[in-house]
Amino acid sequence: MPSAPPVALRWTDGATGHLELLDQTLLPGRIVWLPCRDVETVVEAIQSLRVRGAPAIGIAGAYGLVIAAGEAVRAGLGPAATREHLHVRAARLAAARPTAVNLRWAVERTAAVLERCPPDAGPLPLAEALLAEARAIHEEDARLCAAIGRHGAPLLADGGVLTHCNTGGLATGGDGTALAVITTAWEQGRRLEVFADETRPLFQGARLTAWELVQRGIPVTVLVDAAAGQLLRSGRVNACIVGADRITARGDVANKIGTYSLAILARAHGVPFYVAAPSSTFDLAIDDGADIPIEERGAAEVLRPLGVPAAPEGARAYNPAFDVTPAHLVSGIVTERGVISPVTPERIRAILDG
Amino acid sequence: MPSAPPVALRWTDGATGHLELLDQTLLPGRIVWLPCRDVETVVEAIQSLRVRGAPAIGIAGAYGLVIAAGEAVRAGLGPAATREHLHVRAARLAAARPTAVNLRWAVERTAAVLERCPPDAGPLPLAEALLAEARAIHEEDARLCAAIGRHGAPLLADGGVLTHCNTGGLATGGDGTALAVITTAWEQGRRLEVFADETRPLFQGARLTAWELVQRGIPVTVLVDAAAGQLLRSGRVNACIVGADRITARGDVANKIGTYSLAILARAHGVPFYVAAPSSTFDLAIDDGADIPIEERGAAEVLRPLGVPAAPEGARAYNPAFDVTPAHLVSGIVTERGVISPVTPERIRAILDG
Repeated sequence: MPSAPPVALRWTDGATGHLELLDQTLLPGRIVWLPCRDVETVVEAIQSLRVRGAPAIGIAGAYGLVIAAGEAVRAGLGPAATREHLHVRAARLAAARPTAVNLRWAVERTAAVLERCPPDAGPLPLAEALLAEARAIHEEDARLCAAIGRHGAPLLADGGVLTHCNTGGLATGGDGTALAVITTAWEQGRRLEVFADETRPLFQGARLTAWELVQRGIPVTVLVDAAAGQLLRSGRVNACIVGADRITARGDVANKIGTYSLAILARAHGVPFYVAAPSSTFDLAIDDGADIPIEERGAAEVLRPLGVPAAPEGARAYNPAFDVTPAHLVSGIVTERGVISPVTPERIRAILDG
Repeated sequence: MPSAPPVALRWTDGATGHLELLDQTLLPGRIVWLPCRDVETVVEAIQSLRVRGAPAIGIAGAYGLVIAAGEAVRAGLGPAATREHLHVRAARLAAARPTAVNLRWAVERTAAVLERCPPDAGPLPLAEALLAEARAIHEEDARLCAAIGRHGAPLLADGGVLTHCNTGGLATGGDGTALAVITTAWEQGRRLEVFADETRPLFQGARLTAWELVQRGIPVTVLVDAAAGQLLRSGRVNACIVGADRITARGDVANKIGTYSLAILARAHGVPFYVAAPSSTFDLAIDDGADIPIEERGAAEVLRPLGVPAAPEGARAYNPAFDVTPAHLVSGIVTERGVISPVTPERIRAILDG
C-alpha cells in the first residue's frame, strides 16, 4: 500500500481565500502551517525557504498571484488598477528567488490567464480565473511527479542510492522528483538502501528528506556531505539522483550547492548520476550553465548552523546556494516525458518537443 | 611581528602534576581549561575530541603516561607494580582513538623510557623520566611545526588557499601542520585568501581554524564542505593543503572525513593538493591505505549538529571520522625534513631515512 507524500502547500476557501504553507524551516521538530493572506508573506516565505524546492515555489508563486487578486478585491480596485496591481505583484513574486526557473515559469503562466479575460473584468472574476490556473499547475505538478517516478524507477537497481537536498513531496506539488523516483522504485519492491546527504547549509537532506522517508516507512541513512566520497568509494552506492532548479538547453544543471561536487565524485567512482525534474525546469533561452544566476545567501546560514554560532566573530562566509553541473557529468535527466540519456541538446529538444 | 598560535595543552607542576587541556568542544564560544589528573580523564578527552589533531593527541597521550606514573606514586605502588600499571595505562592511552598513528607512536616512545630506567626504580623517578620524554616530544613537535611551515610556505602563491579541518596550534604542540604552512606564508608577506571548509560533522574548520586565524589577524572565509567544488571551479583557489592522521609507506593519507572528496575535486580542477604532517605520521608497516583502521563515530554527531536535533527520530547515520586519499591524488607531502613530491614509496623512504 503506497504511503502518501507530505504536502507542502494547500489553498483554502475559494478565489478570495488564502494559501497555507507547511513551514519547512521548523521541520522536523514542529509542524506549523503558515497562512499567507498577502503577497509579501508569500515572498518572505519563499525567500526564507519556508517553502522551497523549484516546483513547490513555482506553485506558491502561482497561488501568490491569486492572493494578489484577493488584495485587489479587498481594496476595491477597478479593472485597470487590478491588472496593474497584478503585474507589479507578478514581477515581485517571480523575482523572489533568482535561480529556479520554475518560479518565473509558473507566475508567468498564471499571469497569462489575464490576457484571456475580458479587459473590463473586475478583480473577483480575475481571481477566479487565476485560481483555476494555479490549481491546474498544482494538480499538473502532482501528475508530473508521478510520471517522473514511473520513468525513473527502472534506473534504480537493488542496493544503495544516494540523494542530495530534498526533492520529495515537500519540494513539489506531488510525490517529488528525484525522491519520487526513489519512492516509486521502493514501492515497486526494489530493495533500496537510501542514503541522504544532510545538505548543508540548511540541512534539507537531514531535516526534510529523512523526515519524508521515515514518515513513509522507508529506511534512510544520513551522512555529512563531505562523506559522500568515502561512501561512493565503499561501493555501497549504485546510483546518485538529485533534482534541479534550472537546466539549460545543452543540459547543464543548476541545483543545490554540493550537487556539482557530488557529480564529480560519482563520475570518479563510475557511479551513474541522474537528475530528475519536470520539463518546466528547462530554460532553453540559456545554453551555458555559467549564465544561470546563482543566488548568494547570507553568511549566517554557514556561520550559525541551526541558529547556533559555530564560527568566531570576524569570520566571513562564502555561501552560494546553488552550483552548476555540466551536462557531461549527468548520466540522464528524468522528466515526465521520459529519460533524456545521453544528455545532448538534440535529445533534450526531442523530449521537450515530443 | 608574527602572532603566536593558540595552545592546546600544557603541563603543570612537576612530575606528579597534571595536564591541562583547552576543551576544544567548547570553542570558539568558551575558553575552558580541563585539568586531567588521571588517565581516564585524558582518554575521555581524546575520545570526546576535547583535544584532537594527530600531533596534539600524541602529546596528550605522552603526558597521559606521566599522569599514570603520578597515579602510581599516589597509590604507593612498588617498582614492579608501577611498571605493570604503566603498561596497562599505555595500552589504554594508545588505543583511545584508532586512526591517528601519532598517538600510538608518542605513547610507545614515552613508554620506551622505562626500558632505560633501572628495574628497581620507584614510581617517582619513573614519573620524572616520563615527564622529560613527554616534554621532549612536546617541544620537538613545536620545532617540527616550524620546520613544516618553512618547507611548505614556498608552495603557496598569492591568492586563494583552501584547507579542511583544523591543523593549527590547537592540533599540535606548536604552530600546526597545514595551517603552519599557511600562517608562515602569510607572515612572509604572501597575500593569501584563506578558505576554510567548515568540516562537518564537528565543525573544526568553522570553530577552530577560523578562530585561530581570527585570533592571529588573518582574514578567513568559511564555506560548507559541499561548496568546495563550486569554489574550486570559480578559479579563486590556487592550492589545497590539509593535515594527516596516518600516511602509509606508499603515501596513502588517512585524514578527516571529506579530505578524499576534496582531493578528487582538486584534481578535477587542476589545483595542487598538499598534505602537511610530521614524519611521525608515517606508518611504514602499512602500504595500502585500505588497511588503515577507520574510526566510525556515533550517529549523534551527524543527526544532532552542535547538539541541536536536525534529523527525525528513526533516521540512521553513516559517520566515518576519516577517509583515505590515495597517493596519486596528493601533489606533495610537506614534512619537517622537506617536501615529498611526487609522492612515491622511494621518495618517502628517502626523506624519512635522510
